[in-house]
Amino acid sequence: MNVMLRGRTRHYRSVSFDACANSVRLIEQRLLPHEFRIVGTRDFRETARAIRDMVVRGAPAIAATAAYGLAQGALAFRGQNLLAFARHIANVCQVIQSARPTAVDPVNAMNQVRTRMNTGGTVAERQSLALAAAADFTDTSAAECRAIGEQGAKLIRDGMRILTHCNAGWLACVDVGTATAPLYVAQERGRRFHVFCDETRPRCQGATLTAWELAQQGISHQVIADNAAGHLMQRGEIDLVIVGSDRTLGRTGEVANKIGTYTKAVLAARHQIPFYVALPLSTFDWELKSGRDIPIEERGEEEVLGAWGVVASRRFEGRRRKARERVYVQMANPTSGARNPGFDVTPPELVTGLITPVGIFKPGELWTNRRALGHPA
Amino acid sequence: MNVMLRGRTRHYRSVSFDACANSVRLIEQRLLPHEFRIVGTRDFRETARAIRDMVVRGAPAIAATAAYGLAQGALAFRGQNLLAFARHIANVCQVIQSARPTAVDPVNAMNQVRTRMNTGGTVAERQSLALAAAADFTDTSAAECRAIGEQGAKLIRDGMRILTHCNAGWLACVDVGTATAPLYVAQERGRRFHVFCDETRPRCQGATLTAWELAQQGISHQVIADNAAGHLMQRGEIDLVIVGSDRTLGRTGEVANKIGTYTKAVLAARHQIPFYVALPLSTFDWELKSGRDIPIEERGEEEVLGAWGVVASRRFEGRRRKARERVYVQMANPTSGARNPGFDVTPPELVTGLITPVGIFKPGELWTNRRALGHPA
Repeated sequence: MNVMLRGRTRHYRSVSFDACANSVRLIEQRLLPHEFRIVGTRDFRETARAIRDMVVRGAPAIAATAAYGLAQGALAFRGQNLLAFARHIANVCQVIQSARPTAVDPVNAMNQVRTRMNTGGTVAERQSLALAAAADFTDTSAAECRAIGEQGAKLIRDGMRILTHCNAGWLACVDVGTATAPLYVAQERGRRFHVFCDETRPRCQGATLTAWELAQQGISHQVIADNAAGHLMQRGEIDLVIVGSDRTLGRTGEVANKIGTYTKAVLAARHQIPFYVALPLSTFDWELKSGRDIPIEERGEEEVLGAWGVVASRRFEGRRRKARERVYVQMANPTSGARNPGFDVTPPELVTGLITPVGIFKPGELWTNRRALGHPA
Repeated sequence: MNVMLRGRTRHYRSVSFDACANSVRLIEQRLLPHEFRIVGTRDFRETARAIRDMVVRGAPAIAATAAYGLAQGALAFRGQNLLAFARHIANVCQVIQSARPTAVDPVNAMNQVRTRMNTGGTVAERQSLALAAAADFTDTSAAECRAIGEQGAKLIRDGMRILTHCNAGWLACVDVGTATAPLYVAQERGRRFHVFCDETRPRCQGATLTAWELAQQGISHQVIADNAAGHLMQRGEIDLVIVGSDRTLGRTGEVANKIGTYTKAVLAARHQIPFYVALPLSTFDWELKSGRDIPIEERGEEEVLGAWGVVASRRFEGRRRKARERVYVQMANPTSGARNPGFDVTPPELVTGLITPVGIFKPGELWTNRRALGHPA
């Protein structure tokens, strides 16, 4: 999507590959929204570190990074011995996978690359197949987001005021995003609308990343405290809610997503405001039978007890070099602890529809349409 | 209530008076929760400035401050001319009132002091009556909070997990608080329970002030992101909600309070969790006929776009002197704006009961009990 740099607009993907330099190029997301910088990794180990250290985040984006990281590792191999090459590749996969051990998307992405690579008869063939497979994986991922946008854009009419939660934007994907995709496609089609971004405490991905994305794209928007959405709905100032999903159960239609999503769904239902979830097919879980079985990560207390930002007090203004440094500030009482569940589960009766690349479905329609939605069996 | 200082517990009120020094003594609330300091104002102008600059906040607390400030101004008068004294008093009232022009509580408090003061025949008599009236006003305010606590403590059973929002604690009152009063009285009676404090973005009064109060009092508690309450309710981890109120309509039972209160009420209703509002009689509005007529203050964008805290990054750790300085950090995308409604209105059907000093009432019972609840007519 677009990034404005010194008054000019340029198109970027969150993940790309520089074949000349054998380098994975990533947006350094830890500096956003205060600074835009592209970093290139010199080898697969550095790519793994970028995943581990959250230079890149979001399941589709780290999947593409892993795919390119594997190709990068393959291309760095010197020699023609297929057995030595295979051992090298196993090591590359292991290093990249261990950078984010709980994520399943990087593993799936690397498996796709390996399967196609192994059809090559020589090391050189396998190397070029690895790169082609990684590029195809990335293009397919971007196209899937684009398809979500085409489906979801139908819901957006002129003058609408739309609420989003967290960041399921292009930064988390390769391009276009999931919850943001309908916004971007609707904008392309000339529709005018306004977006309220929940700041999404405790990590504030709405205030930082989604707001940054929408500003780059020139979409009218405002950040709101998570507390304010109910009031705005009550006053008739929100017409539509679109959120992303970390896992959606194909059997029940239950939606796991960033903490606070459930609250917005409850409020939307009370005010009869349509509540949509946008997601790629890889986010469906066809195994679990109940949302109660989805493990809810309890995250560190420090996220709730403080916040990260750029010091903007007058006292610090003189120090220009320090001005853009991101620091952690303790906000809460220092002798208090915190609870910090990272996700919640929204029951199907609160979900108006699921925006997928292949169409919009009601939660109760997922299982009967499981073939179209990528159920593996 | 209690404050722990160097391992010892001492009792404080948020507002008191030092007659020897003719000084209003206030807890410097802008330093909390990171530092506890009592400041004394030297004259009524400094007292007015303390109100204006939010050294003291919360309607009952600024009312007591205004009452003592008026007495302070009266006591500073030199001479015996009643006409000159009256002119001086008019000026004192004007200066204090203009420190927080939209607040009605300081005006009511000063009117009470003036009425009683004017029964004196000489300047000296009026001076001592002013101080007695201010002290009585403050004691009555504290006693009213205590009575709220006695009423509300009946709702709290052993093992309960209670949610609060914002700070309607003793810092905002003279002592005991409103929403916190039932907690403190229940604790006195030996009941054991756990409190979840909504951090209450954007100003985080829950994470800073309520958490600090509960820690001083030794009450088990945790701070949560405003986003987390819905999830905790869904998992059956909240048994009771108690909040304060900025204005409650006696005719309809509608409750205006800090932004996000409405959301918690909607969630509580969905999960059949009792939702109580604790308030002194001065908070009832017997005039307005609809919650839609309550003006909702739109506050500054910077509250949503950033946060105040103490820098805790490792980079800053070496600088001990700076370590406790409260700074503002910009969190959100710097080219984005914000909406920041400060309050919302909870409809009566979501309110289980109103905890007042004279009993607990259902929202529909307010008007018929208006005499007992202080309706002026």
